[in-house]
Amino acid sequence: MTGTAQPGPVRLTAELAEFASGLSWDQIPESARHAARRTFVNVVGLAVDACRHDAVEIAVATLGDLGLRGRSSVLGRPDTLTAAWAAFVNGMAMHVEDFDDTHLRTVIHPGSPVVPAALAVAELTNASGRDLLTAVTAGVEVACRVGNALGPGHFDRGWHLTGTMGHLGAAVAAGRLLGLDANRMRHAVSLAATQAAGTTEQLGTMSKSMHPGKAAADGVEAALLAAAGFTGPDAPLEGRRGLAALLAPEPDLAEATRGLGRAWEIEANAFKPYSCGIVSHPVIDAAIELRDILSGPEVIESVDVVVRPVVLQVMGVEEPEDGLRSKFSVYHCFAVGFLDGGAGPAQYSDARARDESVIALRRKVRASTEPTMPKDACEVTVRTTGGTTHRVSVAHATGSVDRPMSDERLRAKFDLLVRPRLGDRAAALWHTAWHIDECDGIANLFGLSRW
Amino acid sequence: MTGTAQPGPVRLTAELAEFASGLSWDQIPESARHAARRTFVNVVGLAVDACRHDAVEIAVATLGDLGLRGRSSVLGRPDTLTAAWAAFVNGMAMHVEDFDDTHLRTVIHPGSPVVPAALAVAELTNASGRDLLTAVTAGVEVACRVGNALGPGHFDRGWHLTGTMGHLGAAVAAGRLLGLDANRMRHAVSLAATQAAGTTEQLGTMSKSMHPGKAAADGVEAALLAAAGFTGPDAPLEGRRGLAALLAPEPDLAEATRGLGRAWEIEANAFKPYSCGIVSHPVIDAAIELRDILSGPEVIESVDVVVRPVVLQVMGVEEPEDGLRSKFSVYHCFAVGFLDGGAGPAQYSDARARDESVIALRRKVRASTEPTMPKDACEVTVRTTGGTTHRVSVAHATGSVDRPMSDERLRAKFDLLVRPRLGDRAAALWHTAWHIDECDGIANLFGLSRW
Repeated sequence: MTGTAQPGPVRLTAELAEFASGLSWDQIPESARHAARRTFVNVVGLAVDACRHDAVEIAVATLGDLGLRGRSSVLGRPDTLTAAWAAFVNGMAMHVEDFDDTHLRTVIHPGSPVVPAALAVAELTNASGRDLLTAVTAGVEVACRVGNALGPGHFDRGWHLTGTMGHLGAAVAAGRLLGLDANRMRHAVSLAATQAAGTTEQLGTMSKSMHPGKAAADGVEAALLAAAGFTGPDAPLEGRRGLAALLAPEPDLAEATRGLGRAWEIEANAFKPYSCGIVSHPVIDAAIELRDILSGPEVIESVDVVVRPVVLQVMGVEEPEDGLRSKFSVYHCFAVGFLDGGAGPAQYSDARARDESVIALRRKVRASTEPTMPKDACEVTVRTTGGTTHRVSVAHATGSVDRPMSDERLRAKFDLLVRPRLGDRAAALWHTAWHIDECDGIANLFGLSRW
Repeated sequence: MTGTAQPGPVRLTAELAEFASGLSWDQIPESARHAARRTFVNVVGLAVDACRHDAVEIAVATLGDLGLRGRSSVLGRPDTLTAAWAAFVNGMAMHVEDFDDTHLRTVIHPGSPVVPAALAVAELTNASGRDLLTAVTAGVEVACRVGNALGPGHFDRGWHLTGTMGHLGAAVAAGRLLGLDANRMRHAVSLAATQAAGTTEQLGTMSKSMHPGKAAADGVEAALLAAAGFTGPDAPLEGRRGLAALLAPEPDLAEATRGLGRAWEIEANAFKPYSCGIVSHPVIDAAIELRDILSGPEVIESVDVVVRPVVLQVMGVEEPEDGLRSKFSVYHCFAVGFLDGGAGPAQYSDARARDESVIALRRKVRASTEPTMPKDACEVTVRTTGGTTHRVSVAHATGSVDRPMSDERLRAKFDLLVRPRLGDRAAALWHTAWHIDECDGIANLFGLSRW
């Protein structure tokens, strides 16, 4: 074994399963409930917006050909699919614009795998909105806590945690809504753990958004199989050949249960103001700030961006040829932030990626890395054609833990995404989603979402 | 990156995709065709036998509840499911008895993921038996060749290659039968690669047989999505954060294409005479030989087994509590080999795992490891109550490359499995499966298999 798990709780999977199956709404403090509502409403808006994205259309058409039409709802669309495949499509739609929530410590986007799994099973079982949100909370906790335990080496090896850890969170959320006891929940986690996958080589392609989709679908199936008596090993996470040993060079398993049930990882779930890889958000903040200082792109001679190394690892595409690739170009991010004053889905369209003014400006951007640069920070220096220099330092990007998106800004983001699709019904959908824990069921949510 | 891919062909995925989409029956030499027939007929017999195994019953019931009944056939059963799920169930049934084929260099069991994917898509597209067998050959080549490239470190890290590499082989087989061109085949491989998973922690549980099942199902879906225009990255295998870098500490990518189209890995696919982990097969050979020398278990005082280290890593269960676990106990393997003179599914039942005579004999077995012991070899020393010593050395286990199962013995194995299920129809099924490349379609195969 090259990656041997460090000593940790010997009953890790069992302990997480007991927590997840035993969790009740009453045990969740208001701060975590609020975070769960924010997590939920954000991905609902995203799914409604992106439910007719090319990648989603191909998936729905293919699944239809495969005979996978069923009775489970897809947000935004009239199509109904089987439960696992409705979860797949919703997960893809929530993630495809790279605009979903982020657990910053691990860079997991937990909403996109966990929420669709919960929605699909809640619909199957006629669960209440409160049960749904309890399941989402349990799933996000497990995904993020195991992510914490695997440590940064898991991402550094090249894994996309939204796929790997998303599998665990989706199975837990689905399992809770099926009422699995701790023993069957452990098996559900086992079945999900051995399907945990997703490589970061997929960034910038349609297949990246398959990761949360497949995590959601596999999680639903894992929970249903476990409910029917299908079994796996006792220690799928902590065992000698379990997930921690295979996926991370230096796991610290104790991290997964530290403060379990008292401290809530979901409260550290952050929300993006910009629909691209989160590590370039400080640069977009800087670009928007510079937009107010400089008269226009024509006065810019050069832009020097200093970021931490991961930014160029993930976002180093210099000449993105299409919209999906442009989400992984810190150069493009600066250009649209400066030119458009924002960075939503419209800024990462194929047209914008190929626009001459965008190309001209992004070619003026040079990026260098500084290992000591803090996580949410960057430094941008612009030299103008007139010979002046402007330096902007961003200490904490908008949407970071230290500078979170307010509820109002989250609502504005929801409106930006949903109003063009639903018009005035956007307000009703927001209201239903934001108050989902007061709803008897979730049918109304799907009904309101369709366009 | 802790696992950085070694220099290799920069167009690895493209080259494999070109090979797979371009391969024609005429290019496959008779030796490889013969190996493909053997691979095919062996797993068909296994699926017919195991199609009502507990794990399979749970899966079929769960899938039915999920609305996944469709028009694709399951070997042995009257149920029809959607294409991907028929592939899932067939793959599980082929593997659940640990009796399937083995590519010994990599310890991939390629038949169980590749054949079901090919069957499902061949049925969808009304393909001929010859097209089916060409697709199986292409899929097995790609799975085993990438497995060769990842090297022993991939298994040593704890991955179950039948799951990881099975995904690639299944996507290739399915993609060929959909007529994917090289470009779309490359995307099919991409979509399968980012779902490649399966940990060896699952050994001895139901979830192990999910690995080829999910590989087959995911492969079918990947090929269908790629056919519809869904895309992934160009270099999912060889890229900086691709499969080789993530799954293996020291990949040698050139191994994947060495002699491609001239040398055939499928010819190195071996067949098990015993339905348990292949690494303990030499010990069973020795037990059967000792059975002819000694009068009975009562004269045995102790058994000392010397094996290579991997045997105890994989087969080290000392007191297996059920049939599935007993497949991973070299102690149980010796006991049933000696007591029963064989080691088929009947020897790995729950009843046999708990039988007092088996327990008494397996407790007399001590195992030690010797790193220099060759792959298919072992040494067994028995001390009798009378004070005599008998030593048996096995140089090459039955079913190894150096001592392969003959076609006759493969037929006898098929009969052992299928005759109790189908009676005299077993001969007709064998004939159809063995001559599948002369059949216009595969409907007859499914029809004959049902019981």
